[in-house]
Amino acid sequence: MAIWSFFARASRAFHDYPVGSKLLVLCTLSSGGLVAYSESQSHIGSPSVDVNQSEPRKKRVVVLGTGWAGTSFLKDLDASAYDVQVVSPRNYFAFTPLLPSVTCGTVEARSIVEPVRNIIKKRKGEVKFWEAECIKIDATNKQVICRSNIDSNLVGNGEFSLEYDYLVVALGAQVNTFNTPGVLEYCHFLKEVEDAQKIRRSVIDCFEKAILPGLSEEERRTNLHFVIVGGGPTGVEFAAELHDFFQEDLVKLYPSVKDLVKITVIQSGDHILNMFDERISSFAEQKFRRDGIEVQTGSRVLSVSDKEITMNVKSKGEVCSIPHGLVVWSTGVSTRPVVRDLMEQIGQGKRHVLATDEWLRVKGCESVYAIGDCTSVDQRKIREDIVAIFAAADKDKNGRLTISEFQDVMGDLIIRYPQVELYLKSQHLGDVTDLLRDSEGNDRVEVDIEQFKLALSHVDSQMKSLPATAQVAAQQGAYLSRCFNRRDECGENPEGPRRFRSGGQHQFLPFRYKHFGQFAPLGGEQAAAELPGDWVSMGHSTQWLWYSVYASKQVSWRTRVLVVSDWTRRFVFGRDSSRI
Amino acid sequence: MAIWSFFARASRAFHDYPVGSKLLVLCTLSSGGLVAYSESQSHIGSPSVDVNQSEPRKKRVVVLGTGWAGTSFLKDLDASAYDVQVVSPRNYFAFTPLLPSVTCGTVEARSIVEPVRNIIKKRKGEVKFWEAECIKIDATNKQVICRSNIDSNLVGNGEFSLEYDYLVVALGAQVNTFNTPGVLEYCHFLKEVEDAQKIRRSVIDCFEKAILPGLSEEERRTNLHFVIVGGGPTGVEFAAELHDFFQEDLVKLYPSVKDLVKITVIQSGDHILNMFDERISSFAEQKFRRDGIEVQTGSRVLSVSDKEITMNVKSKGEVCSIPHGLVVWSTGVSTRPVVRDLMEQIGQGKRHVLATDEWLRVKGCESVYAIGDCTSVDQRKIREDIVAIFAAADKDKNGRLTISEFQDVMGDLIIRYPQVELYLKSQHLGDVTDLLRDSEGNDRVEVDIEQFKLALSHVDSQMKSLPATAQVAAQQGAYLSRCFNRRDECGENPEGPRRFRSGGQHQFLPFRYKHFGQFAPLGGEQAAAELPGDWVSMGHSTQWLWYSVYASKQVSWRTRVLVVSDWTRRFVFGRDSSRI
Repeated sequence: MAIWSFFARASRAFHDYPVGSKLLVLCTLSSGGLVAYSESQSHIGSPSVDVNQSEPRKKRVVVLGTGWAGTSFLKDLDASAYDVQVVSPRNYFAFTPLLPSVTCGTVEARSIVEPVRNIIKKRKGEVKFWEAECIKIDATNKQVICRSNIDSNLVGNGEFSLEYDYLVVALGAQVNTFNTPGVLEYCHFLKEVEDAQKIRRSVIDCFEKAILPGLSEEERRTNLHFVIVGGGPTGVEFAAELHDFFQEDLVKLYPSVKDLVKITVIQSGDHILNMFDERISSFAEQKFRRDGIEVQTGSRVLSVSDKEITMNVKSKGEVCSIPHGLVVWSTGVSTRPVVRDLMEQIGQGKRHVLATDEWLRVKGCESVYAIGDCTSVDQRKIREDIVAIFAAADKDKNGRLTISEFQDVMGDLIIRYPQVELYLKSQHLGDVTDLLRDSEGNDRVEVDIEQFKLALSHVDSQMKSLPATAQVAAQQGAYLSRCFNRRDECGENPEGPRRFRSGGQHQFLPFRYKHFGQFAPLGGEQAAAELPGDWVSMGHSTQWLWYSVYASKQVSWRTRVLVVSDWTRRFVFGRDSSRI
Repeated sequence: MAIWSFFARASRAFHDYPVGSKLLVLCTLSSGGLVAYSESQSHIGSPSVDVNQSEPRKKRVVVLGTGWAGTSFLKDLDASAYDVQVVSPRNYFAFTPLLPSVTCGTVEARSIVEPVRNIIKKRKGEVKFWEAECIKIDATNKQVICRSNIDSNLVGNGEFSLEYDYLVVALGAQVNTFNTPGVLEYCHFLKEVEDAQKIRRSVIDCFEKAILPGLSEEERRTNLHFVIVGGGPTGVEFAAELHDFFQEDLVKLYPSVKDLVKITVIQSGDHILNMFDERISSFAEQKFRRDGIEVQTGSRVLSVSDKEITMNVKSKGEVCSIPHGLVVWSTGVSTRPVVRDLMEQIGQGKRHVLATDEWLRVKGCESVYAIGDCTSVDQRKIREDIVAIFAAADKDKNGRLTISEFQDVMGDLIIRYPQVELYLKSQHLGDVTDLLRDSEGNDRVEVDIEQFKLALSHVDSQMKSLPATAQVAAQQGAYLSRCFNRRDECGENPEGPRRFRSGGQHQFLPFRYKHFGQFAPLGGEQAAAELPGDWVSMGHSTQWLWYSVYASKQVSWRTRVLVVSDWTRRFVFGRDSSRI
């Protein structure tokens, strides 16, 4: 059995590095051990080779993905304390909030990307980067299988595996087609830089094709009908960008078809931008109406073909089809297959999204963290722990909780269950002790377990899942890197709240999202913004705020300079309409 | 017969605009005329519709291509005098001499392109542009068949035909593979903007693939072996750019493979840059040797496979194969199929390149002009006209030519046969009359026909075909537009030289190429240049000359600003290595 197990492991090792380092495997069956001696002359640290060093081995951290979450994690990580390897099919970080600007050439694609190697080069300690796609996470054996996504005739099969002590899953999400027929074949998306570049070329294609001799006016109109499915911030911003591109630049170059252009936004809900304050929503709808952008709300797309898009219009209760030249599908995200596979392995198969606890640890498997769009924080309900909380707070074990006993645990309670604070706010309660008032609003000196349960019974209704935004992902990445950097320190002196069930303290404070607001650029140098403290701002000045925030948020000075000079170039020379 | 002919024409008209304007065709058979009435509501001038206007119809000029030749023609053309239509598969002009810089991100692709519509918008008069590929030139019926090259699901079949009174063929040339097996499948080229962008991505691919875990050192070396076939200016500049990109930027990002990178230039001749002065050639070879770029001269590539390139090394007299990661094929140009088809139609089937006369009129068909890389000026040999010249010069018809009679025709002779001037220069003859000296070098008072033939017998040896460069194409375009602009003026007062055979004068001066020199950037901020008057300049200062010349030659202020800011960006931040 020992021999069989050795061969199985050896064969796996050879399979993982099939043409790689020539490994001379010496084994002593008596001890059952396996000593691998690398004969390779290569200086490139092959990840399995570093194992037998004399100094204590650093913990191996594998990071999957270089989007907002992964990059934010890497930016702040003290890489000298770990053996860090990053795997991503893209060797760059893309500033995705500017993707709609790339579709029309307001900003160039190169201006919003920064090579990952540039970012990790500046870290303390070495970080290795592999441009490859993670095709399998093997949580049982603590390894990931990766494959190079380079589609060329270069030598080497490009498949390899990495073992980890800690895995950070920051793989993001994929487009959600809701299984609508024809979407994958005939729609454009707006998730990757390549998508934006493709849209840019296709928009010009529509104009060039529409203007050719020999087309009927109807055909020209069809080719110049741009449809956006999804009235969220991305879809709306793209519609606005496209309208500006047409009004400010293309109209001069294609004057003969200027009256044939039409932009339609299809939204299943009753309003566009419905995740924003309704003042913003109606401001955007009014602006679009003035601009001639048609907003078709209450419509659900049933199918997309090469020439038409078919939808169910709720208000009319009928199904209608409209011809299109270009469709951009921007409706939401779903789980990637590799994450779905991990979920099956760890008993999360029935969930929609990979769940983590408040410390961003994936539930159901060890040493795996997940951040960004691929995951959702599954917050602990207070009612599940209510008995334990009561028991922990009831110091004198008399079965009743005094105000002072309650106040003792309240600090930990608020940290551990963020919904408590939100509930207090929503009920306009100044003090936590207000929770313990009786039904007539009178203060009570003490409560029993049933009264305590009743007092906290509505708190859990305030739990909200976090939106799939760059802001959340970036904060999660930063939070997680802080935990990694303070692992030893907080191991000795835990900083987290009390563990009500098992006693003791959590090692770290749980992740807490802080919303800094959100922008919705609406074209024509106008924008809307939801700012912290329920502030709403709209108009030209908001667009300038948008410019300054987006310039300041750039990941490097290089991209900052490029983005600002792109904006300047656009003001001076307009957008380029070359089809490249 | 008249009815048949009408239907044939009508059916052709319908075929050419199959789904286009709804043409209501009214005919009066008595007069045999055809009146077409357009019912179309479209404002887009369908090219066949304008025919029956009350004011005299402008001559229709169709221009094929928007490269150096076509764009240069359009830039200077007085479009108000003609009905001008331009057809090109690319809706932009590309500043091709900067393509090698685009391959490594020294300059961005967008910075070297300018939309054709921007260029023609500034012309006096309207110029129509159609983004389509010319698939057939029908010289007999004076029309071109075009097809949209947009590969998408947009409506309209995109095929149309244009009739012309004058056709300007500026289609450029295609890559010459010399029928070497595997070149089309496995090599990169450097003719279009897309080619340069593809090379840029592929170079990064080579590095990303080479650095992956699990590859042997040999495999890493193979992936990092960059081979350039062709030691002309483009190939050499690309090799230099690639070396700079690696030395200045990539070495910091991929330090573990820095010793495995190799660049090889394969040249069939004995020296690289052999069209330049040999001082430049050896300067370049020495520079490359210092940089570690291998120059393999005297080697002819026999075949290219996905992994290897096989060549015949003359010096060793053997065939050898070397593994490669990326091959760029840059060896010369050949005729495009559509031009080849035209050549077959007009009896030029046996030639390699489409021939024009000195007025850039295509030989063998009427009203067709050809400029740029797709054509070659077939200069008239003086010995073919020698009898006519003698007869025209011999005013007193005494069968002998005096010096003064000769001097009378000499001006026209030098204009008509540019080789005369080159011959005088090459023989260090100060005066044309020196040509008439006898074999001992004594002046003669007069010569007979045989002596005259002998005197001019070596002149034709100085005829040289023009190189396929941007400079030649641009000058031809500018020359031709001048002819078009002065067509009426020069119809009345011809400006050309005397017609020795048929009498009278040529309408225009023949095209004369003026060489302004040529650059060869060699990397490391050094360049070599051949300047007018056989000047040769090499080194850092030449690179600065290169910068200023290339900045000044940009087609618009927009591209000028962009190119200069790209150079600046490169100095400050280096080149971007994101794989997009």
